[in-house]
Amino acid sequence: MKKLINRPEDVVKEGLAGMLAAHSDLIRVDIEQQIVVRRDAPVRGKAGIISGGGSGHEPMHGGFVGLGMLDAACAGAVFTSPVPDQMLAATRAVDGGSGVLHIIKNYTGDVLNFEMAAELAAADGIEVASVVTNDDVAVQNSLYTAGRRGVGVTVLLEKIVGGLAETKAPLSAVAALAQKVNNQGRSMGMALTSCTVPAAGKPTFELGEDEMEIGIGIHGEPGRRRVKLASAAEITEMLTTPVVEDLELKAGEQVLAMVNGMGGTPLIELYIVFDALNRILGGKNITIARSLVGNYITSLEMAGCSITLVRLDDEMIKYWDAPVHTAGLRWGM
Amino acid sequence: MKKLINRPEDVVKEGLAGMLAAHSDLIRVDIEQQIVVRRDAPVRGKAGIISGGGSGHEPMHGGFVGLGMLDAACAGAVFTSPVPDQMLAATRAVDGGSGVLHIIKNYTGDVLNFEMAAELAAADGIEVASVVTNDDVAVQNSLYTAGRRGVGVTVLLEKIVGGLAETKAPLSAVAALAQKVNNQGRSMGMALTSCTVPAAGKPTFELGEDEMEIGIGIHGEPGRRRVKLASAAEITEMLTTPVVEDLELKAGEQVLAMVNGMGGTPLIELYIVFDALNRILGGKNITIARSLVGNYITSLEMAGCSITLVRLDDEMIKYWDAPVHTAGLRWGM
Repeated sequence: MKKLINRPEDVVKEGLAGMLAAHSDLIRVDIEQQIVVRRDAPVRGKAGIISGGGSGHEPMHGGFVGLGMLDAACAGAVFTSPVPDQMLAATRAVDGGSGVLHIIKNYTGDVLNFEMAAELAAADGIEVASVVTNDDVAVQNSLYTAGRRGVGVTVLLEKIVGGLAETKAPLSAVAALAQKVNNQGRSMGMALTSCTVPAAGKPTFELGEDEMEIGIGIHGEPGRRRVKLASAAEITEMLTTPVVEDLELKAGEQVLAMVNGMGGTPLIELYIVFDALNRILGGKNITIARSLVGNYITSLEMAGCSITLVRLDDEMIKYWDAPVHTAGLRWGM
Repeated sequence: MKKLINRPEDVVKEGLAGMLAAHSDLIRVDIEQQIVVRRDAPVRGKAGIISGGGSGHEPMHGGFVGLGMLDAACAGAVFTSPVPDQMLAATRAVDGGSGVLHIIKNYTGDVLNFEMAAELAAADGIEVASVVTNDDVAVQNSLYTAGRRGVGVTVLLEKIVGGLAETKAPLSAVAALAQKVNNQGRSMGMALTSCTVPAAGKPTFELGEDEMEIGIGIHGEPGRRRVKLASAAEITEMLTTPVVEDLELKAGEQVLAMVNGMGGTPLIELYIVFDALNRILGGKNITIARSLVGNYITSLEMAGCSITLVRLDDEMIKYWDAPVHTAGLRWGM
């Protein structure tokens, strides 16, 4: 196992300590409890927004805590859901009297634990709303989910609803926008290589030298099919077509497009995929009005990429463009 | 060779096409000539700043073109210097009447080609100043250089002098600040794995499953020594000590610290290294006043990292903090 780590059991806490050291202007970190909180939380009168999930997907979610995006993030062990106590503590830490939105990727453990945290928070008198992202078109049910998995849309949703929450819109409006973004977004991913969970010490799965996995999940869970290596143009087509069809995107519409790296793929390759995506959508007269190219929701050092498209309207564009200041996304300030 | 590419010979041009598609608000790209130019260049009365080098180090340099950083970047083939014609065309494109600074990483091909371009530009009546970065403390001479290699400091220097140039300071002042930043900065890198140049189709070098290379260059050229795998804390010590000693950093001083990923290393590991670096410098009473953690000067999909420290003064902090708007670095706007 070739990794820049110390003891496998210290990976998450030491990673959080590094985040805190680098970004103490933005965040507080409870390293023991593995919670990243916006430095000025709770913000009075603002609906709080929290998310969380297994570690190993950085910068998601801790890298998205800050003005205009998340108020807190809970980090589980690598590829393992955080526990309800973390989510409850985060919910309490960010409630500014206007309630808290939980953004949950659709994995059974995450969903159950966030549900329990929401009940405990309600018993405390904190209003909680929830949205479950389920944008992955690759499979209907998977190793860790009933229904579709939540993947790339989560990042884009956190940015857009974070922009709305900053205006002190009521929790109900923030939750409604979150639901809309999830409804209007779809993703699909692929892997050229596996990744190795530090505590396991060996690759999660095996892929032959001439093979790739289409429809992979962000924990290396199986996708649609294992096929022979293909060109970037062909791979982009394999990912884009199911997304466009499932979203029923039509000529004349505009999208927010993300080409996301899984962690081990160089940026030049992600731009090659974005070029191919741009050609495919251009051929359908679908406009990429906004975009993001880079590593945003990763699977440790896995090589591969995912494509996410969100059908845009003026409200979503407005809050996508709104200022954001986090470790992982920053503009307008 | 597992890569998201089409034909190896199209990697650079298709990557540039993707960059243009994603960032047309910031840049123009001459895909044929492989030049990325700030969209509003030339800026009247502003010293132009260009850089360039082999591709495969993205986001460097094309990702650093925009307000507050570079005016243009020339992209060579992967790990291969651009040619003088590219540098001359970039120099002409960005000269707003106040001359142009060439930022050159110390590799023999780059240095010779930039020298020739500077002579050709001078014949055109364009004033050119040059700075050669040579911050890599790992080796005194290397496979591709006489003297030290230019690596991580290049990124930080481009940001700082870009900030000064935006104030319309004269070329001589911009060049002097560039020289100062280079003088005050040092770097050292390491690799856990090799990388594969697309046109070669096989790894640049071989590393055993239990080996790493300390002092690696950004093209996979040999470092100081090949040793057994070690912990992140030990590796960080191996990189930091030579940098601190060479810079003669003393207690009470403050630095800009970059923990840079080589392309294939996940962000959580870079934060673990930053945590270790923060402890080491803290133990010496050296303050990290500013920092950067992520993939900024990469070697395709190589796993590994580099550490760069720049001794800061108030002028450097001021221009580091100044607004920047590029694909790879953005703040203050």
